[in-house]
This record gives sequence, structure tokens and C-alpha cells, in this order.
Amino acid sequence: MKIKFFTTGGTIDKVYFDAKSEFEVGPPQVREVLQEANVVFDYEIESILRKDSLDLTDDDRQLIRQRVEAEPCSRVVVTHGTDTMVQTGQALAGIADKTIVLTGSMQPARFRVTDAVFNIGSAIGAVQSLPPGVYIAMNGRIFAPGRVRKNREKNCFEEVAAG
Amino acid sequence: MKIKFFTTGGTIDKVYFDAKSEFEVGPPQVREVLQEANVVFDYEIESILRKDSLDLTDDDRQLIRQRVEAEPCSRVVVTHGTDTMVQTGQALAGIADKTIVLTGSMQPARFRVTDAVFNIGSAIGAVQSLPPGVYIAMNGRIFAPGRVRKNREKNCFEEVAAG
Amino acid sequence: MKIKFFTTGGTIDKVYFDAKSEFEVGPPQVREVLQEANVVFDYEIESILRKDSLDLTDDDRQLIRQRVEAEPCSRVVVTHGTDTMVQTGQALAGIADKTIVLTGSMQPARFRVTDAVFNIGSAIGAVQSLPPGVYIAMNGRIFAPGRVRKNREKNCFEEVAAG
Amino acid sequence: MKIKFFTTGGTIDKVYFDAKSEFEVGPPQVREVLQEANVVFDYEIESILRKDSLDLTDDDRQLIRQRVEAEPCSRVVVTHGTDTMVQTGQALAGIADKTIVLTGSMQPARFRVTDAVFNIGSAIGAVQSLPPGVYIAMNGRIFAPGRVRKNREKNCFEEVAAG
Repeated sequence: MKIKFFTTGGTIDKVYFDAKSEFEVGPPQVREVLQEANVVFDYEIESILRKDSLDLTDDDRQLIRQRVEAEPCSRVVVTHGTDTMVQTGQALAGIADKTIVLTGSMQPARFRVTDAVFNIGSAIGAVQSLPPGVYIAMNGRIFAPGRVRKNREKNCFEEVAAG
Repeated sequence: MKIKFFTTGGTIDKVYFDAKSEFEVGPPQVREVLQEANVVFDYEIESILRKDSLDLTDDDRQLIRQRVEAEPCSRVVVTHGTDTMVQTGQALAGIADKTIVLTGSMQPARFRVTDAVFNIGSAIGAVQSLPPGVYIAMNGRIFAPGRVRKNREKNCFEEVAAG
Repeated sequence: MKIKFFTTGGTIDKVYFDAKSEFEVGPPQVREVLQEANVVFDYEIESILRKDSLDLTDDDRQLIRQRVEAEPCSRVVVTHGTDTMVQTGQALAGIADKTIVLTGSMQPARFRVTDAVFNIGSAIGAVQSLPPGVYIAMNGRIFAPGRVRKNREKNCFEEVAAG
Repeated sequence: MKIKFFTTGGTIDKVYFDAKSEFEVGPPQVREVLQEANVVFDYEIESILRKDSLDLTDDDRQLIRQRVEAEPCSRVVVTHGTDTMVQTGQALAGIADKTIVLTGSMQPARFRVTDAVFNIGSAIGAVQSLPPGVYIAMNGRIFAPGRVRKNREKNCFEEVAAG
């Protein structure tokens, strides 16, 4: 079994550069997560972008869509900032024959207390279990992009009526 | 959505009691994992046993089966030692209308470097995505209990021919 | 034995506020470090400032000096940003009858991989072992403020000729 | 500045061997602690023994004493199990011209929540600050071996009348 990982940035990949006193998106953190988890499936990690998801443009979303469409592997996980994950999920609608799961985290993977590892795990459990389509894996649930939103006050994802 | 967690012991729940110089199965670690992951589904955690899985007897496995059968919830995750997880998975065969996923870890959840959090995440992603049946979630893959074994030399789970 | 902790901000106390997509100085992290270390001495923690040390003014340094001077306890640890720790150390020169140790960290205490815990430990080992005076505890060494500088390229503190 | 580390075993160095279902003393954990702390002093790590300190014999203690006496470096840190750390501290009495600090931890260095990093930090802060002699660094305090004991009920070290 093979899974392709595309990374786009977001909180999950934020690291601290002391020299610059800056906290910025760094290299894909999913790599270390997979190594520590000692996964036994084949995988490839491709970094498409390194942006806060609030800074993603429609062109960026089209770029992500093109890369996913062009990818031969039928199981795709996309790590992404949480703020506009739903929007990107919707931009990936209708891609044939692929199970695509988007995930990210509220606390960076580099933190001692983080949701990153759990979320990546849940996306991986889901991507090999679900039929083709696009899904969001956050806060332990698997959502359809048309029926979920990020609740900023409660700082979590929740189901909404289809729309 | 609701998930029922049954815990049976195993490495995942091992904690260190300095006063006794003993490293033993302690209370269910899945509780803290779910809290840190900030999950948004309902859940219940029930500790059936606190044993190394090498010490589980057929009576223990029947007890586990009875509890799972009696559980009204249709989504069940069982945390378990890795040594005889497959055996217990096979003992749960044929329970109707339930998606049952067994998982555990090679390194205790209390360790700084552990597969526990990722594995629990993968089990949770799978349990809400799969049709009724019994599955093993280890090393990032979802296996059928009849087609997997723990490879002790490589310290991981791997697929085998059906048997 | 009693130790007074004054916190002023810096990388050591930086936390991530996902709702604001901001990484800022938060509450004193030394509190959790002391709890996890299970320390058996009495202590008090007082937050004087919550600033990046590059933003500290001379007035800020005078405020820190005043608080240290007014403190009855003879053993004082000051957590501080690393960029201008030496400058603040020099501003504390000549305070009588107190052993004062400044420390901080290059990676926030909230990170999984951090120097914060080690550094706080080293400051505490030093503050009860040294005669009255001002010291800097970074990278495992105890320095005199007049003979140390932060080497930004190597991202560590190093001894320099007196000056 | 140079520090010599001698390791003798104890909880601090316990690691989990899943293949054997065994939790045993492994290689010196102080190495990783020093690397993560990014220390700038020279050091050498020598493993003398890998035992639970309850299993140390008088011959073992004499061996430790011989190694410390033969060591040219004047600053020595010994990592050791907590149960008989005081006894070994007393066995090192009277070694000339060396500052010797013993430390260890109640929770293994490999655990997510541990006192190991803090304790090693405190020992290092103390060893370069104290005059020649033997000291115990535990729970954030620096003790003289003749005036401390491990309180097993409270699971911490505490001062006692000289004896």
C-alpha cells in the first residue's frame, strides 16, 4: 500500500527560528511523525507550499488541485493550515478515483503537547479505509468538506448542515 | 458519533512505579491521548483487564468478547498488548453490526518517543470509516486479523497469506 | 531554602495562540518546569514583564533591578530572553548579598525538544552554590556577565575577554 | 571547562525493550540530554556499571571510587539510581581536589514527563560552582551526602541531621 503526502504549510509545520526570533512554517513535519510511528507502508512526501492557510490564494488552491490530479497514487493525505482547510477541501471536489484526506493541527508538531501526531494518524487510518472522495480529518472525526467548518471560538472543527 | 474504548493492558499502558522499581500496566493511557487530541466525538473508556497480552487466557478473551458483544455502541476500539493482539482479534470474529479496531503500541504512551498516539489516531480514523468487522491498526496500516502477524525480529506488524 | 524567580519574557515563555495565529510570550513557563521536577525547596514566581528581550528598554532594566533589590530572598533566578540577557545581567551589578542567576532558552519551554528545562535546572544548581553576585547560566555553563556574549551565528553563549 | 560523566545505571537510564517485554537499564541517557541542551563545555561520558542501585555491592562502590580517583578532570558528575545514591556518595568521601556531584531521576529520561533533564542540569550548574567535595543533586537541591536521605513514602530526597 502506498500513500502520497502533499504538504502546504500551516500551524502543523511551524518551527521556531531563534536567530530571527521568528516562528514560521518550516519543512514538512509529517516526515518525522511517520518515522517515529514506524509505519510499514510506502510513502512519498512532496512540499507544494509553505504558507499560513490564511495566505493561500485561488491560484494556490488550483496548484494543489493540479498536483493531486496528476498524482498516480490513489491515496492522498494533504497537510494544511486549519483556517482554510475546508475551502481547499472544496476546491478538490470531483477528482476521480482518489481518496483524499486533509488534516493539520492547532498546535505545531514540534510542541510537546500537540494534536499533530494524532491527526496525522487519524488521516492515515481513514485514507486507507474510505471510498474515493475528499475528507477532512480533524479533532478525531472524519468530515465531508461540504458539512464542516472551523469553529474559531471553540478552536475545533464541527459538523454543519450541508452547504 | 460515539466510540467505545475497551482497554486490556499491554505495553501501551505501562507506567513506572519508582517506589517499587516496577514497570507495570497502569490505568488506561487512551484517556490522556483523547484529551490532548481535543476530540469532538462522544466516548466512553472501560478497563476490562490490565495484563501483558502474553498473560491473556482464553477465558480473558471470552470476557473481552462478551463485553464487546454487550456494548450498544457500534464503533469499538480495543487497546491491547501487541504480542497476542492478532489472537484476540480472531476471537472477536463474527460479532454482528460492529466495527471493531484493535490497536496498541511498541513503546508505552508515557514515553517521549512513542507510537501510541499515532496508533490510537489511526484506529479512530479507521473505526468511523470501515464497514462492520474486526481490524488491527498497527504501524500505520489497517489489517484483517486473519492476514497479519507480529514480526518479532523487525518489531512490526506485517501482512501474511490468509490463514 | 528559598529561591525567588522573576520572569521577564523571552523565547522561553513563548506559546502559540492558534486563534490569533500568533506566537507570543505567555505566562511564566518556569512554574510547570518546577512542578515536573518535583522540587523540594520553597519558591515564589513573579512576572515582571512579558517581553522579547530585544524590546526591553533601560527603564525596563531599572524596573527589574528595583524588584531584585527589594526582594528579601538572597537567591534569585531571572528568566529572560537570550538576546539581551547579558545587558540585563550587567544592569544588575553591585546588588549586595544576593546570588542572582539569569537564564533563558533558545527553544521555548513548550517545545518537545528544548533547552529550557536543562537551563532552569542549571540555574537552580548554581544559585544555591555560588557566592553573592550576578551570573548567566546558558548552554550548561555559568558565566560572569562581563565576560560572555551571545554568539548569534553559532546560536550559543561563549566566553569573551573581560569588558 | 571540562566535566567527566560516570554512569552507573539506575532509573534514569531505564529503557523499554519491547521484544523482551523488559524494562531495563540501557546506555547512558545523559548523552542525549547534553546534546539537546546544546552544552558548550567539553565532556566525556564513561559507563562504569548498568545496575539498579539496589543491586550495587561494596565492590561496585569501590570500583566507582577508583574510577573517580583515577580521573584527571576535577569536575565529575555521576548518574546513579536513587535508592542507594547516598550510600555511594558516602563511599566517595575524602577524594582530594575534585568536585563530585551525584544525580539521577525518579522517572526515566526516556519518559515524556521526567525529572532527568532538570536534575542533570542542576548537577552541571552545581559541579562548576562548588568547592571540592561530594554532593547530591536531587529535587532541585544540593545536599551533602551525610545529611540527606531518600524519603520513599514522599518519593523525594530530604535533609536530615548529620549522621
